[in-house]
Amino acid sequence: MEWTVIGTWKMAAAGVRIAADILQQGGTAADAVTEGISDVEDNPEFHSVGYGGRPDRTCHVVLDGGFMDGDTLHFGAVGSLEGFRSPVRIARSLMDKEANNFLVGPGAEAYARANGFEERDNLTEAAKEIWKAEKDRLKKLSAYDGHDTVCFLARDAHGTICAGTSTSGLFMKEPGRVGDTPVPGSGYYADSRTGAAAATGMGEEIMKGALSYACVMHMKNGMSPMEAAQKAVSDLDRELKERNGHAEAMSLIAVSRQGEWGIGTNVEFTFAVSDSSHPAKVYIARPEADAVRIEELNLE
Amino acid sequence: MEWTVIGTWKMAAAGVRIAADILQQGGTAADAVTEGISDVEDNPEFHSVGYGGRPDRTCHVVLDGGFMDGDTLHFGAVGSLEGFRSPVRIARSLMDKEANNFLVGPGAEAYARANGFEERDNLTEAAKEIWKAEKDRLKKLSAYDGHDTVCFLARDAHGTICAGTSTSGLFMKEPGRVGDTPVPGSGYYADSRTGAAAATGMGEEIMKGALSYACVMHMKNGMSPMEAAQKAVSDLDRELKERNGHAEAMSLIAVSRQGEWGIGTNVEFTFAVSDSSHPAKVYIARPEADAVRIEELNLE
Repeated sequence: MEWTVIGTWKMAAAGVRIAADILQQGGTAADAVTEGISDVEDNPEFHSVGYGGRPDRTCHVVLDGGFMDGDTLHFGAVGSLEGFRSPVRIARSLMDKEANNFLVGPGAEAYARANGFEERDNLTEAAKEIWKAEKDRLKKLSAYDGHDTVCFLARDAHGTICAGTSTSGLFMKEPGRVGDTPVPGSGYYADSRTGAAAATGMGEEIMKGALSYACVMHMKNGMSPMEAAQKAVSDLDRELKERNGHAEAMSLIAVSRQGEWGIGTNVEFTFAVSDSSHPAKVYIARPEADAVRIEELNLE
Repeated sequence: MEWTVIGTWKMAAAGVRIAADILQQGGTAADAVTEGISDVEDNPEFHSVGYGGRPDRTCHVVLDGGFMDGDTLHFGAVGSLEGFRSPVRIARSLMDKEANNFLVGPGAEAYARANGFEERDNLTEAAKEIWKAEKDRLKKLSAYDGHDTVCFLARDAHGTICAGTSTSGLFMKEPGRVGDTPVPGSGYYADSRTGAAAATGMGEEIMKGALSYACVMHMKNGMSPMEAAQKAVSDLDRELKERNGHAEAMSLIAVSRQGEWGIGTNVEFTFAVSDSSHPAKVYIARPEADAVRIEELNLE
């Protein structure tokens, strides 16, 4: 009865413990991903997801989220959604519909309201103060250093793999901007027969290489999740630098069908992981010339 | 000075001629794609794109579009956009921005208005009548048979490949629904070093396999565009049937870096193509056991 769960950024640590408990008790990958991400969505100390998330240019906190079931390849997604507690729960609920799986803007909000999802204004006083301080001096939008999209991947004891994502997106983004987070293939991809991957960083760069799908394709071609994630990130990083002179931050988490995990990143990146043989731990990954160096992070 | 242009569905025939003239005169792939698609967007006889497009469940014509430059991998996209003439032109204009390349809903509309894009209510009387007749009896949403998303791929004489897409999406879709059309990797993908692909059919299925990116990956691994497009469609079709018992309509057009073209489809599918050695012609593709049979279609 082996299981694995991995989440992006050290902010995922508590959620990974919650997800690990679910998996240890025989729960599903879908529930583990949902509850793990919800923990991050509800914590105002995490400034890139849900409550307390960074506002857009007009000082609204607007959310993206996605969910995918690796057994069926079904996915659900919401983009540019304001005023709800948990984009990942709304995305999951859209997953098994015959069509209309990806909803955005007022249409997504009408769906969430009609289906009884909890409403919440995610703008905190602290976030409003930061917005006021930064609004006239921010010159270049970038993924928020060290805390960005929360992504969870879980493989349960039955072999099902699910992926989920949730974010408030780029600080000071334009109204209506959608990043990679709700986009299947870019922000996340799950196939229980092969493995799963999910991405965090600059969404506009990640979408230029369908980064999560690329990683899963490499696993399908025989690579380990560590090799696949590192190849996906380093290939896209190199292509973008060759063509455009630079590449923005991109990080991937990956899980194989057997429950092994891997990391690819072109910046310093923290993540939390647990499996049926290991309690939840937080690691830091640093990109080096031809690999990624991973060390346990002491949070005390 | 070799060039190629290909567009989805026989409705693309006039646009392919326009694009071919641009390419023959030394114009860019980006202009060829834009002008070819605009021709389809403006024609009320084509019921799945732009003016005269099929309405959503609330009788609004709401548009998706995307654009990608294979030299830079830059893309632009709009989703769930109402009230504008040309989603493909708006998408193209978003392409070279540093961030905020994918805009949806009211945010996308505010951007388009602020940047002077032509406004137009795309709901025609004919479309309203069809909506009234069908609204109480339509049970299952499906890609509109024989006329769906318009996608153009062009390779110009300089070797640049661009992809563009435009659609009004599924007839009777839910408000806020976004299909594969604006989603890079699924609805379109272009890489001038390898090739490009674009998809039409049931967007929710296409996104389950990042279909356009998968096709370009196969070309990168050495396949011709014909082999790559057919493998991408038949692999996803088979995976979906094995897992879920059925697969909806999906078709791909592809162009290689050298300007060869290819088709993959799991339904009868028409397309228009021209290159520096051949005038514009319309073909019909029919899926068979292990290949796709392609015949010229006599439009007289």
